[in-house]
Amino acid sequence: MAGILQLLRDRQPRTRAELAQMTGLARSTVAARMEVLLASGLVSPLGEALSTGGRPPTVFAFNPSSRIIAAVDVGATHVRVAITDLASTIIVDRLETISIEDGPEAVLTNVAGITQELIAQSGRQLSELAGVGVGLPSPVDHATGRPMNPPIMPGWDGADVAGFLTGLMGGAPVLVDNDVNLMALGEHRTEFPDIDHLLFVKVATGIGAGVIIDGAIRRGAQGAAGDLGHIAVPGGRPVICRCGNTGCLEALASGRAIAAELTALGSPASSSGDVVALVRSADVRASQLLREAGRDLGRVLATCVSMLNPSVIVIGGQMAEAGEHLLAGIREVVYGRSLPLATQHLRIVTSRTMGHAGVLGGSTMVADHVLSREGLSSLI
Amino acid sequence: MAGILQLLRDRQPRTRAELAQMTGLARSTVAARMEVLLASGLVSPLGEALSTGGRPPTVFAFNPSSRIIAAVDVGATHVRVAITDLASTIIVDRLETISIEDGPEAVLTNVAGITQELIAQSGRQLSELAGVGVGLPSPVDHATGRPMNPPIMPGWDGADVAGFLTGLMGGAPVLVDNDVNLMALGEHRTEFPDIDHLLFVKVATGIGAGVIIDGAIRRGAQGAAGDLGHIAVPGGRPVICRCGNTGCLEALASGRAIAAELTALGSPASSSGDVVALVRSADVRASQLLREAGRDLGRVLATCVSMLNPSVIVIGGQMAEAGEHLLAGIREVVYGRSLPLATQHLRIVTSRTMGHAGVLGGSTMVADHVLSREGLSSLI
Repeated sequence: MAGILQLLRDRQPRTRAELAQMTGLARSTVAARMEVLLASGLVSPLGEALSTGGRPPTVFAFNPSSRIIAAVDVGATHVRVAITDLASTIIVDRLETISIEDGPEAVLTNVAGITQELIAQSGRQLSELAGVGVGLPSPVDHATGRPMNPPIMPGWDGADVAGFLTGLMGGAPVLVDNDVNLMALGEHRTEFPDIDHLLFVKVATGIGAGVIIDGAIRRGAQGAAGDLGHIAVPGGRPVICRCGNTGCLEALASGRAIAAELTALGSPASSSGDVVALVRSADVRASQLLREAGRDLGRVLATCVSMLNPSVIVIGGQMAEAGEHLLAGIREVVYGRSLPLATQHLRIVTSRTMGHAGVLGGSTMVADHVLSREGLSSLI
Repeated sequence: MAGILQLLRDRQPRTRAELAQMTGLARSTVAARMEVLLASGLVSPLGEALSTGGRPPTVFAFNPSSRIIAAVDVGATHVRVAITDLASTIIVDRLETISIEDGPEAVLTNVAGITQELIAQSGRQLSELAGVGVGLPSPVDHATGRPMNPPIMPGWDGADVAGFLTGLMGGAPVLVDNDVNLMALGEHRTEFPDIDHLLFVKVATGIGAGVIIDGAIRRGAQGAAGDLGHIAVPGGRPVICRCGNTGCLEALASGRAIAAELTALGSPASSSGDVVALVRSADVRASQLLREAGRDLGRVLATCVSMLNPSVIVIGGQMAEAGEHLLAGIREVVYGRSLPLATQHLRIVTSRTMGHAGVLGGSTMVADHVLSREGLSSLI
C-alpha cells in the first residue's frame, strides 16, 4: 500500500496497469490495494487515460487534500502554527507570542488551542488530522519525542511532549524534533529537493544548524548534531559566553550578542528584531557588526565545509532578514578559507522559505511518516 | 540471490526452509538460487540440521574462502597490499616502499606485480580474484574511481586508476576511494560494527578524516568530506601552511610539522617515523610537542563533535603509534570544549587495526560490492 502511495506522491497520475508494472506487484494485488486507498480518500480517480483500444483505463492520483497536518514551530518567545495538506502546502498559519519558560503543559495547551482554532478557520475537522509535527528549540530524542538537556527551557527536560499533545489533539500521532532540524528538512524538501548535501544555519537569538547528508537529516548519536552555537571561532575575539567557555560563536555572532554590542555603542537594541530594524534604518554600526558576525559565522562554516563538503548552505533565522551584510561576511571568509574542490560548486544563500521553514519541515516529517509503511495504518 | 547471500554473510548456517521464511521467497525459488550459489562455491553445505522427523535438512553457510580480494593502500612513500578472503580476513600482506611521484602507470604496474606475487604466495590463482580495492591519498570521484585535484600526486589528476589496474589484473573489478575513507570503513566494520557515528582521523605526514554517519561513509558533494588538514585551528598559532593560508591544522599538528619543529629545536627529525622514534626514546621535547599537537587536533575535533555528535573518534596514522601523549592532548581539549550532551558517551581511542585499517577497508568495499545485487554477476 505504502509503495503505491509513494509512487503517486510525485503527483503524476497513473493507471492500475502502470502501478503494477512499477511496483512489480500482481495486477490483482494492485486492484485490491487501490480499493482500500480509494476508500480512504488518499487516492482519487482523475478521469481516463488514452487507450490503444477498448475501454480507456482510469488514471489515479494522490489526493493531498484528503487529510490535514498541524505543524508547530516553538521558539523561546513565539510559536508558529500552520495547517497544511499532505503535500505540505500551507492552508492557514498564525504566529503567536508565548514564553517557553511557562513550561510544557501551559505552552502545549496553548498550542493545542491555537491548532484547533486554525483547523476550524480552514473549514476542516479534527477527525481529518493525520498528525502533528512539533519543532522545539532543544536537542530532542527523536525516538521518544522528548527534549533532552534544553539550555533555556525550565521544566521541559525529558517532558513527554508527544504523549501530552496527542491527548489534546484527539489521539493524532505527534512527532517531535529539534527546530533547526525541521527548518533544514522544510527548506530542503521545498526549495532544494535535488540537493543531497545541505546545511541550514539558523541565526537568531541563538545559533544552530540542521545537517542534511546524502538526502536525510543526520541527528548524531544523541540527537545533538548541528550544535554550532558553542563552537570556538578560529581567530575569534575572547568574549565570555553564557556557557562558561570563551570565544563561542553565539557569544560573537548571535542576535543577542550583536544587540548587546549595539547597546554598548549607543544604539539601544534588545533583540534580533531590533538589530534587523537598525540595519534597515541604515545604522552604519549595525551593518558593520552584522558583517563582522558574518565573518565569525564564516570562520566556523569554513570548517564545516572542509568536514562535510555540502553543495548548499542556507542562512535562516531572524538575522537573515537583515539583508546582504551577514551573507557577505560569511561568503568572504568561507570562499577565502576553504579548499577549492569543496567551494567550486558551493552556494551560500538566505532562506527562501524565511519564517516558514520550521512549519514546512514539521509538516514534511509527519507526511513522510503517515504515508510510510509503518505509519499508514493510522490513516486507513 | 544477493538477498540470500546477505543473510548468510552473518556466518550463521541456515536451512533452505529458514532462508525461504526469512526472505519471503517461495521454497522453489530459494532452491533454484541455492543451486547457483552452491555451483559458484560462494555457499557450501555444512552438514545436517536437527529435524523433528524424516530426513534431516541440510544447513548451508557462506564460504568466504571461495574467492580472494586484493586490497591496496597507497601512500605517498609506501604501499600496503593484502590478499584477503571475502570476509576481509587477511591471508597475506606486504608493505613496500614506493614514490607516488613516479605517477600512476609506474606505481600501479608495481602494485599489480606485488599483488600477483602475493596471490601466488598465498597458494591462490588470479582467476579466484573477486576484485581489487584501492585507497589513494587524494580526493577520489567514487563513481569513476579517478583521483581529483590531488595535492601531492603529479600525474594522477583524473587518471583512470580503475581502468588501468583492471587491465593488469585479468579484468577483475577495481574500486577506488580516498585512503582515509577506507581506513574509516575498515576500522568501523572490523572493530566497531554496532557504532553508527564514527570519525577516523589519520595523523601522519598529513591529516585527514573519514566520516561514518548513520552507519555509512559520507563523502560529501564532491567526495571531499573529511578534509581536516587545512581547517583553521581555533586559538592556534599563525604558522604559514604550504596551502598558502595560516594556522591550518596540518601546519601545526602533522608529522611533517612536528619533525620540522624538533629539527629547529636541535632534535633532528625528517618524518613521522622519526618523531615516533624520538618519543619512544623519551625525548621530552618530542613528547611535549606531540601533546600540543594533540591539543590542536582537539580544538578542531571539538568543532566536529559539536557538528556531528559521533560516538567514537578513532585516531590512526603513524603518529598514533607514539603512545598516549597525542591522545591525552586531544581528550583534554575535546572534553573541555564540547557540550556535555555530545561528550557524555563519546570515546576517543587509538586505532585497533593500526597499519591495516586501509587494506581492511579496501577489502570490505570490494566484498560489499561483489556480494550485492549489482556486483554479484561478476562472481556467478
